[in-house]
Amino acid sequence: MSSSHAPSNPGTLSYEQAGVNYDLIDPLKVSAQRAAASTATQLGRHGFTEVAASRGESAYVVDVGPFYIASIVECLGSKALVADEMATLTGRSWYDGIAQDTIAMAVNDLITVGATPLVVQAYWAAGGSDWFGDAQRAQALVAGWKKACEVCNVAWGGGETPALAGIVEAGRIDLAASCTGLINPKQRLSVGDGLQAGDAIVLLDASGIHANGLSLARKLVERLPNGWLTEVDPVNHPGLTYGAALLAPTPLYSPVTEALWAAGIVPHYCANITGHGWRKLLRHPAAFTYRIHTLPPVPPVLKFIQHHAQHDDREAYSTLNMGAGFAIFVAAEDAERTVAVAQAQGIGARIAGVVEAGPKQLLIEPIGVRFGDDDLQLR
Amino acid sequence: MSSSHAPSNPGTLSYEQAGVNYDLIDPLKVSAQRAAASTATQLGRHGFTEVAASRGESAYVVDVGPFYIASIVECLGSKALVADEMATLTGRSWYDGIAQDTIAMAVNDLITVGATPLVVQAYWAAGGSDWFGDAQRAQALVAGWKKACEVCNVAWGGGETPALAGIVEAGRIDLAASCTGLINPKQRLSVGDGLQAGDAIVLLDASGIHANGLSLARKLVERLPNGWLTEVDPVNHPGLTYGAALLAPTPLYSPVTEALWAAGIVPHYCANITGHGWRKLLRHPAAFTYRIHTLPPVPPVLKFIQHHAQHDDREAYSTLNMGAGFAIFVAAEDAERTVAVAQAQGIGARIAGVVEAGPKQLLIEPIGVRFGDDDLQLR
Repeated sequence: MSSSHAPSNPGTLSYEQAGVNYDLIDPLKVSAQRAAASTATQLGRHGFTEVAASRGESAYVVDVGPFYIASIVECLGSKALVADEMATLTGRSWYDGIAQDTIAMAVNDLITVGATPLVVQAYWAAGGSDWFGDAQRAQALVAGWKKACEVCNVAWGGGETPALAGIVEAGRIDLAASCTGLINPKQRLSVGDGLQAGDAIVLLDASGIHANGLSLARKLVERLPNGWLTEVDPVNHPGLTYGAALLAPTPLYSPVTEALWAAGIVPHYCANITGHGWRKLLRHPAAFTYRIHTLPPVPPVLKFIQHHAQHDDREAYSTLNMGAGFAIFVAAEDAERTVAVAQAQGIGARIAGVVEAGPKQLLIEPIGVRFGDDDLQLR
Repeated sequence: MSSSHAPSNPGTLSYEQAGVNYDLIDPLKVSAQRAAASTATQLGRHGFTEVAASRGESAYVVDVGPFYIASIVECLGSKALVADEMATLTGRSWYDGIAQDTIAMAVNDLITVGATPLVVQAYWAAGGSDWFGDAQRAQALVAGWKKACEVCNVAWGGGETPALAGIVEAGRIDLAASCTGLINPKQRLSVGDGLQAGDAIVLLDASGIHANGLSLARKLVERLPNGWLTEVDPVNHPGLTYGAALLAPTPLYSPVTEALWAAGIVPHYCANITGHGWRKLLRHPAAFTYRIHTLPPVPPVLKFIQHHAQHDDREAYSTLNMGAGFAIFVAAEDAERTVAVAQAQGIGARIAGVVEAGPKQLLIEPIGVRFGDDDLQLR
């Protein structure tokens, strides 16, 4: 890594200083995306076709006739390292929540294209056989995985539990989930064709940092007086430590998208707010202006990170979810009902803005921040 | 790990001495399998059902009406560590073959249930962003992945390329693949119901060690006079080094299973020969005796390992594939044609034995080895 050592004196802590250098990853990503796209013709051998518009989206979609199949594999990232630190400090395992986070990474991406998740496979690659010897931790992982599958109404199909000494670090685990789903009936397909000026932007609440921005969050702990046990909001949330707040599990949003379908609401587009924070609202390839008039409440742990990393609003909203976990773009007349459907599933939601004709940009009016087309290059 | 340090004096080198302790992993596996099985009822919410017999098989199968969907996630294991060593010694990247190995792990398992692989997702978790900065290596991985997808007629849907410093070791990469396929028409489903006494056992040739037994193979290198560059068979294969021989890519067997269907042959059962070597021939849950009368040629690198690890035939065949990469159980009258179909796809094959009524056991007659029911506990 070119910049893994942040200065030890306090100051702004950027994402690059926290150890992730996208300049090194991106050329490979572009090359891999081109190679992957070229393989689409293989489906023709089986009489099927890809949904080409899904190539730039969060899940890959194939037309198999009676319905579409969507599939995905997603990594948890480095959140498990926080669970390990907190286990040492608190004496209990946090892997039940970590399991939910891992499944959320896959499921919340899969549903953006209109898919109903059906099967999840577990990928648990440990640094050695002994990882699985800690029964309390292993059982927490199993129990959390099962529960998250039940919340999403998916079958846990199976998976891999390799011991990878020499590849995965001793005492650590690399967690990922793959997910397969159906878009059924086919009208549920949501890869962007439906988005139009006048649509409402409904934001589903985040529970905290979810599983993006953890490199930054982990780097920041060095600056905190009491480390992982520093309270993030002593006045309003006494006793809530930085570590525990970071470990709030990511919500599973598929009950909301399923309930929307049951209520007769078909989103015009969806975006899972993960890496790149609010810039993910610019994900759709067409030129629209997204005007935000109402902000969700910012989870205390994200306010805390913004403060200690000395991020201005622009940097915070460009990196973290700042309270918005998932964006649903719907016809204006469906907006209030969309909020009600989400809330009935126990997920906070609000009409946050509107899609307008205009140059591609995101205008977050309450804080005076603008992101343009240059600020997000995902494709 | 309880036993990662083998004695430095030569002697028998067991799989446990090579660093994999299944006793620690198995309780978690059992617990995870039970929890996973309990989630099957979730599919009922969507009007679907699982194919319960697939729970013990290599891929998970769901009945979605017009056809079955099969899905899987599979890990490469530690073979990439050999590629890293050989890159240092030879100055070239071996990751094109490693890519094929990773896809083979997923595809060769998926096809056992009768599925046609359709979509592969890449999971490439590196120890840091800088892994992707080695352009030669990264491009070899991309090119090999693309080529393997083309051989299998699958679309490369996308994937994840996280940088996981602190979880994956610096300079290393954790490679896995997920695969989704269809069993279409439904008569192609092969989860064991069809197996019967009198069936022939056709074995498809292995190219080498594939991606199982690498912990043992890597441990063994310490004993070799010239390390990775030791020749494995100077008389018949001059210049073939241990490292290069280990890195022979795993064959992709899906062109064979697709060609069998095209030829009107429906296997009664299939087994991918991976971990546990020939004991995988006992995978089917029912009680049958498998009598082997003809052995495939043993790849030079496996002969070499057997010799240097001082394994008797029983230990070698219980750990390594010993030349058998994939087993197809077919009606006796289809056996010769099955061999011909495989060979037409460029995969060596032979009728190796027969399924008989009798106690559950594998009799490898040419070497006088018997494995019983106790020798394989996979479920």
